Amino acid sequence: MNWKARLLKLSGLMPEMDDAGSLAWGTLADAAEDAELVFLGLDEGKACFAAVPPEGDSSPRMANPQLWSLMATLRADDLALYGGARSIVDWHARHRFCAACGGATKIAKGGWQRTCTSCSTEHFPRTDPVTIMLVEHEGRLLLGRGLGWPERAYSALAGFVEPGESIEEAVAREVLEESGIVAKEVGYIASQPWPFPSQLMMGCYAIAENDEITLDTTELADARWFTRDEVAASMNGDADAPMNTPPKQAIAHHLLNWWLEKHA
Amino acid sequence: MNWKARLLKLSGLMPEMDDAGSLAWGTLADAAEDAELVFLGLDEGKACFAAVPPEGDSSPRMANPQLWSLMATLRADDLALYGGARSIVDWHARHRFCAACGGATKIAKGGWQRTCTSCSTEHFPRTDPVTIMLVEHEGRLLLGRGLGWPERAYSALAGFVEPGESIEEAVAREVLEESGIVAKEVGYIASQPWPFPSQLMMGCYAIAENDEITLDTTELADARWFTRDEVAASMNGDADAPMNTPPKQAIAHHLLNWWLEKHA
Ligand SMILES: [Zn+2]
Ligand SMILES: [Zn+2]
Repeated sequence: MNWKARLLKLSGLMPEMDDAGSLAWGTLADAAEDAELVFLGLDEGKACFAAVPPEGDSSPRMANPQLWSLMATLRADDLALYGGARSIVDWHARHRFCAACGGATKIAKGGWQRTCTSCSTEHFPRTDPVTIMLVEHEGRLLLGRGLGWPERAYSALAGFVEPGESIEEAVAREVLEESGIVAKEVGYIASQPWPFPSQLMMGCYAIAENDEITLDTTELADARWFTRDEVAASMNGDADAPMNTPPKQAIAHHLLNWWLEKHA
Repeated sequence: MNWKARLLKLSGLMPEMDDAGSLAWGTLADAAEDAELVFLGLDEGKACFAAVPPEGDSSPRMANPQLWSLMATLRADDLALYGGARSIVDWHARHRFCAACGGATKIAKGGWQRTCTSCSTEHFPRTDPVTIMLVEHEGRLLLGRGLGWPERAYSALAGFVEPGESIEEAVAREVLEESGIVAKEVGYIASQPWPFPSQLMMGCYAIAENDEITLDTTELADARWFTRDEVAASMNGDADAPMNTPPKQAIAHHLLNWWLEKHA
């Protein structure tokens, strides 16, 4: 038995960094006396924990510019560790009460559950399935710019799977709602967890029956068709590329590479 | 403008049936005065509603034998409508309080949201992603019997996707945990919503590296390898078949047919 443990240093939900630009770690003594501790796993023989902060994410379904800049600076392994830790402590911070009875909940099973102190209902962290899709029409790809995104930023359309839908139905509905495009022959490409706050991203591919875009301006600032050359130039970061594509940590980056190879 | 509306007749969470064995419908006057009403959609020019019952499902993550017998008797369109309605009213019944602050929530947006009357946090129905997988080893298929299932009932292994996992990682972890089998080359086959209570079932296929089964007896009563002939005989309902396969409403049924055709 040993007691080697370390505590991920968080400021609210954001990570603290050490001088080398890595995630900063402290000891369990750094946690507030009444803090709930989530067990993150073992790393280099030490048990790693994170403390549940007083407040969770105030708008968990929105993109957060702070997070995008973090993604550009953190190493891949630090980003994966931080993402998983943030997702779970944020869930705890936003679920201190029982949805069934309103009673107080307490952390259980090392942080993978909360249990109601009043009615004993067990609550589990939630993962929301999201579809993200490449829609193609005669060799061109449909990409969109979300509300509030930087002017040149384009990515694959995406949306939550609604109750009662299959993945394939969600893709077709989302594409139709956001762009007026009818998607058929929906296929699956790959999946990736996305911990901001807690999505399962499912990348799909579809063929468009039409190409006249009717934009849903409550969801998108723009949507356009891009040629293979335009996508390739953008992924290369060419100076004359028409847009900026998503960073390599996002599944959209992987999907765009998949599409470029498919048409290589 | 017209006021044609009908109310799905529920007894708790179970449906009431008319003399013809279809779902029974009443009028909005049949709802309790303070009942929350969920808008299900339009059918034959009438707005369809369901009332949130006083209690939700007490063990929503468990299989419910009442539901399995319903599935054998209800028509496909009635089953889909009932499944969707049950899923949403059950969610409402189990989320009358705000997980963030413990305050009372109230129904919003026709039933697709609840909003906290105290802190204004918006809560959305939850859909849990679940993987269900065909694992093959040298032409034989791994199928399991869950705890409490009938003696001859076998189906594909399945489990919830955990936070931080891709679909492919979830398949490999679940198969290893439940059966000791190492799964590789995981591929996606098809998806289906499953409203008891609210899952997104994602059917996958994988190749097994080994065939010696180490059963997790906290999850499964049995797991075995079946030949193509055995699976085919079971799906045909042959008298000498070694097992009973899942009903046609379950995605497992579709997956088994996919596998039989793959090896036809
Ligand atoms: Zn409770
Ligand atoms: Zn609240």
